[in-house]
Amino acid sequence: MPASFRSDNDAGASPEILAALAACNDGAAYPYGADEWTRRAEAALARVFERPVGVLLVSTGTAANSLALAAMSPPWGSILCHRMAHSNTDECGAPEFFGAGLKMVASASPGSRLDAAVLARELASGRGDVHAVQPSGVTLTQPTEDGQVYTAGEVASIGRICRDAGLPLHMDGARFANALVAAGCTPAELTWKAGVDLLSFGATKNGAVGAEALVVFDEALSGTLPFRRKRAGHLLSKMRFVAAQMVAYLHEDLWLRNARHANGMARRLADGLGTVDGVQLLTAPVTNILFAKLPESLIAGLVQRGFDFYHGGRWEPGVARLVTSFRTSPQQVDEFLSAAREIGKT
Amino acid sequence: MPASFRSDNDAGASPEILAALAACNDGAAYPYGADEWTRRAEAALARVFERPVGVLLVSTGTAANSLALAAMSPPWGSILCHRMAHSNTDECGAPEFFGAGLKMVASASPGSRLDAAVLARELASGRGDVHAVQPSGVTLTQPTEDGQVYTAGEVASIGRICRDAGLPLHMDGARFANALVAAGCTPAELTWKAGVDLLSFGATKNGAVGAEALVVFDEALSGTLPFRRKRAGHLLSKMRFVAAQMVAYLHEDLWLRNARHANGMARRLADGLGTVDGVQLLTAPVTNILFAKLPESLIAGLVQRGFDFYHGGRWEPGVARLVTSFRTSPQQVDEFLSAAREIGKT
Amino acid sequence: MPASFRSDNDAGASPEILAALAACNDGAAYPYGADEWTRRAEAALARVFERPVGVLLVSTGTAANSLALAAMSPPWGSILCHRMAHSNTDECGAPEFFGAGLKMVASASPGSRLDAAVLARELASGRGDVHAVQPSGVTLTQPTEDGQVYTAGEVASIGRICRDAGLPLHMDGARFANALVAAGCTPAELTWKAGVDLLSFGATKNGAVGAEALVVFDEALSGTLPFRRKRAGHLLSKMRFVAAQMVAYLHEDLWLRNARHANGMARRLADGLGTVDGVQLLTAPVTNILFAKLPESLIAGLVQRGFDFYHGGRWEPGVARLVTSFRTSPQQVDEFLSAAREIGKT
Amino acid sequence: MPASFRSDNDAGASPEILAALAACNDGAAYPYGADEWTRRAEAALARVFERPVGVLLVSTGTAANSLALAAMSPPWGSILCHRMAHSNTDECGAPEFFGAGLKMVASASPGSRLDAAVLARELASGRGDVHAVQPSGVTLTQPTEDGQVYTAGEVASIGRICRDAGLPLHMDGARFANALVAAGCTPAELTWKAGVDLLSFGATKNGAVGAEALVVFDEALSGTLPFRRKRAGHLLSKMRFVAAQMVAYLHEDLWLRNARHANGMARRLADGLGTVDGVQLLTAPVTNILFAKLPESLIAGLVQRGFDFYHGGRWEPGVARLVTSFRTSPQQVDEFLSAAREIGKT
Repeated sequence: MPASFRSDNDAGASPEILAALAACNDGAAYPYGADEWTRRAEAALARVFERPVGVLLVSTGTAANSLALAAMSPPWGSILCHRMAHSNTDECGAPEFFGAGLKMVASASPGSRLDAAVLARELASGRGDVHAVQPSGVTLTQPTEDGQVYTAGEVASIGRICRDAGLPLHMDGARFANALVAAGCTPAELTWKAGVDLLSFGATKNGAVGAEALVVFDEALSGTLPFRRKRAGHLLSKMRFVAAQMVAYLHEDLWLRNARHANGMARRLADGLGTVDGVQLLTAPVTNILFAKLPESLIAGLVQRGFDFYHGGRWEPGVARLVTSFRTSPQQVDEFLSAAREIGKT
Repeated sequence: MPASFRSDNDAGASPEILAALAACNDGAAYPYGADEWTRRAEAALARVFERPVGVLLVSTGTAANSLALAAMSPPWGSILCHRMAHSNTDECGAPEFFGAGLKMVASASPGSRLDAAVLARELASGRGDVHAVQPSGVTLTQPTEDGQVYTAGEVASIGRICRDAGLPLHMDGARFANALVAAGCTPAELTWKAGVDLLSFGATKNGAVGAEALVVFDEALSGTLPFRRKRAGHLLSKMRFVAAQMVAYLHEDLWLRNARHANGMARRLADGLGTVDGVQLLTAPVTNILFAKLPESLIAGLVQRGFDFYHGGRWEPGVARLVTSFRTSPQQVDEFLSAAREIGKT
Repeated sequence: MPASFRSDNDAGASPEILAALAACNDGAAYPYGADEWTRRAEAALARVFERPVGVLLVSTGTAANSLALAAMSPPWGSILCHRMAHSNTDECGAPEFFGAGLKMVASASPGSRLDAAVLARELASGRGDVHAVQPSGVTLTQPTEDGQVYTAGEVASIGRICRDAGLPLHMDGARFANALVAAGCTPAELTWKAGVDLLSFGATKNGAVGAEALVVFDEALSGTLPFRRKRAGHLLSKMRFVAAQMVAYLHEDLWLRNARHANGMARRLADGLGTVDGVQLLTAPVTNILFAKLPESLIAGLVQRGFDFYHGGRWEPGVARLVTSFRTSPQQVDEFLSAAREIGKT
Repeated sequence: MPASFRSDNDAGASPEILAALAACNDGAAYPYGADEWTRRAEAALARVFERPVGVLLVSTGTAANSLALAAMSPPWGSILCHRMAHSNTDECGAPEFFGAGLKMVASASPGSRLDAAVLARELASGRGDVHAVQPSGVTLTQPTEDGQVYTAGEVASIGRICRDAGLPLHMDGARFANALVAAGCTPAELTWKAGVDLLSFGATKNGAVGAEALVVFDEALSGTLPFRRKRAGHLLSKMRFVAAQMVAYLHEDLWLRNARHANGMARRLADGLGTVDGVQLLTAPVTNILFAKLPESLIAGLVQRGFDFYHGGRWEPGVARLVTSFRTSPQQVDEFLSAAREIGKT
């Protein structure tokens, strides 16, 4: 069957993750995160980030993001975000729900990244005015919705703006590993050293069954989170099975290997597509998400042959989003490219 | 190491469940419940309940309960419940959160079960009065917090009260299998045939890794649930891994076998304890939860030997809660009993 | 037309209040509380309480109470209250709404007043346990729903319990003036000197058109209130018209004169009723609310003659609630008593 | 003292309104809207709109708007609005609060009015997609924030779009009278005949002390409103004092006379300003709000002489907002113009 380039959500789990589930099953364990696997996951994340961190394991990125944003803002606060931010457009209002009616405010930043200078102006708007929602924090997506990456320096610029405003900065890292290997810096440099206070550290899209960590760098933000998590139904009783995934994910760099592979497959795809007649790459193959403009006939042909990917819809006609994963094989990419070339010829 | 009788949450997962996780990992699958395992889980639940049902898979019982209660009540509504109901006392206000401030109202029913006649009066209170929260539904826990079971007839009595009041009835079945095998009737008889409109059908405590189904019998209640689930961060991207658990749980009666075993271990424990000097059984060993009054010295001795169980705290001093699971072995029970007898002699 | 003893809400406004509305109408005034009348109302309240106070003027007691309770508690918190507390039973879940799902928890205190010792136990329950709502404050009603009064010493006992628990204490003083003149102490002694942190200071029932002040004694609780008030639609644009009412209410002791009169009428009513055959006073005539047990024939007769009062319903059959106001005249009371005696004879 | 052109909120109340407050004060009246003045206000609004209407009296426009929007949308819904809509920018997130986290989504409509064609596309976005908030209604402001008016035909175009989408249309008519006399049609034509389902009918800015009516044309939307109002603390106990204002406001066309006067004063102001050197009118004097570009020196001079109006801030430097009211006198306008001319000469 032809490969799916629809989403890295479509891929299953890494064998190492499944093995970890089986391995943690022996004997009784305290529930609700009072188990040793949770301790080990916390320790592993502390090692990755080179400092003590608060960790809340949950099973979805929407939960991690929404818990973070709610902890940052009062109900009458606003969270500045990119207009395309997943938390703004694809979570059915989850941040507003968790945040008791907080307001996601789309920045006027041009392009697909938040712009520090634009943000600075926007964060000043309405502060102290009882008629206005109060700017209460910023969230950025890393990598962005179109697969691009903020460099450590770019994150730091935004981090400074936030610090100057006395407001926290959240990073939605549902695909953090893909961004990290692209950015070529350390996890610490891309996050807390650049002013990030809360990170949604995703593992699910990159090989886990369902495991996300809300990583808290600013201790002042951590006090309410355990209650928020429980109250939202996200404190798992048999937490060891999420924690064991996270431990395996970080063990021997599985997460980085998976991400490098996925990003590499996107590059291979981009390299090939660049040579197909009529195809225009719209984004650089920085991470594992690629946007390209394809002739409608080519899209139709690929779909007919069973290839699966998003096209049109929320984007302009002819625009295709192609996503690779830790499981995408070079053969799958090459089959897609061969098919594209063949269709182009007819 | 001595066995834990602390909670069935402490047990890991059935081998069949873990095998199912591995088995569903092949190939790409549509995310967010658009996969074939989710279809199969839905079909399996429809077979179990002998009718079409709505199914929302989630990973915690708190999520299943809170989604159900929120779907039943407007924000200015009240849900009548037993004063000891888990959703009222142990979910950190999750129903109030999901329900935008709905009110859990503890019934004055005596004992550990809701009483239909008491409920009938309470459901009439304040209806139509704009100053009062509006009675909007009832939730009962099956089995109850102290391990007792509503018979199908008792559920039907409450179901009739609800129907007469035009209000929905929810059953918190975090341990539904344990109740079912104790009640000796069919799943249909214990639920929708007795007037239950929504059921939190738990698998986690009885052998799954993390899998609960909100089963909807009243189609009129199902419309808002997909949005509520997504918005609460409970729509899993790799849903196949929850669905596969549910399929395996229902396959070849694993769920009933696990529950019968757990209940049987509680009976064995009760039978033994009944012969230990100074021990007074406070509840009948109907399901897998047992309450007993133990001499303080016996509790201290068991704890010292490494046995783990709840005692005191929210209950009176000397009261112990003992929970068995699908994993509890006869040997573990017998070791506990031997230790109890030995301690009693000293 | 025979008098109404239904509620002090049925009475209109004191002439002094209406005169104040007319008097404040000259010229332009800054809206939203930035006017001089608001400053004068704040100053008058500071004089009454003999210290600086925060003041938020609103037009309903439900708003004052709910803003206060929401400021005291996180969404996962509980507010301990008397089971009959107006905020628990008669505000359609307003505290839960303003507090994003906080939980009103009825104390097990016997009688119509909160008991400090019972409260102390209840405030300790579940603290720090992520599965439980977190005790976050206490509210007491002064006078109570049955017209009784906490002495300054009784308030202080509860205040100490709260302080020991590190939690704030709110007083619902919708009829504060009636309680104050009954308690025979100063406003300061009955509130902040006794540990009250927030007071709903009602004027509406005692002669205003619609004016309530949320008086904040604990500055730490005041920061979020301006935003909460605006967000709830309770920041009036032409605030001068509420502020002027409050100024007039406090001017030359109008509030105390009105309350003394109302309480006196309740005493006159109680004295008379005590001599009517078959009537049993259920409460002492401490403030302006009286409960009495009347023969059903007497109730029917009074109603037939056009007297209006609550009876039966949420209370037992035969129980009548009789409320006097600043407007109740001795003649009205005497007519009621005459009618009662006449009916008794037939 | 020089006149304020800051806001029609700065003006006090019409003498007729104050007289009505005094006149309704006789005798006892049922509270919470069960009084005869409330019946008369409802009847008066029914006459104005030439049909039966639901009416909820409240004391602020924020309450009326937020109750309406919350009744239109589930928590996971979006309300499309103009980016400058008061409910979107100046109510501190009140719609999000009342609506349990609903999302205000700013339309991409150009200019200061919603555009029916743009709306049509936006209302289709994400419908049925569980990841997206669900378009649930539209709100338009009449007159707009810059004092312009939708004609009955323009409202009807938007009304048709909404009807086609099966969604309700709300009109924020905080200054409805000013729009109506400018539009030159009947209240019915400008509202329900054009597809408006809910109207915030403001009286406060146009002469009342504090009185707004939420007028409900679509009966299907009215069921939840009484509970929402109570729960938000907006059900006034002495409701007769709000109702009497509304009755007086509609009596003998006081509302239309006040609005015509205010609009006339804006025209007089515009006519005069048009002849002042360096002044550029930015909006036509359609209602009682005027925007003009003034030389900075002119603004400074006017401010120095004690004239009060908004300038700069959320608008560009040099932009002034000038608002007239029922109380603005021709002399006040002329003094302002004289001062402007004088300053211009120096």
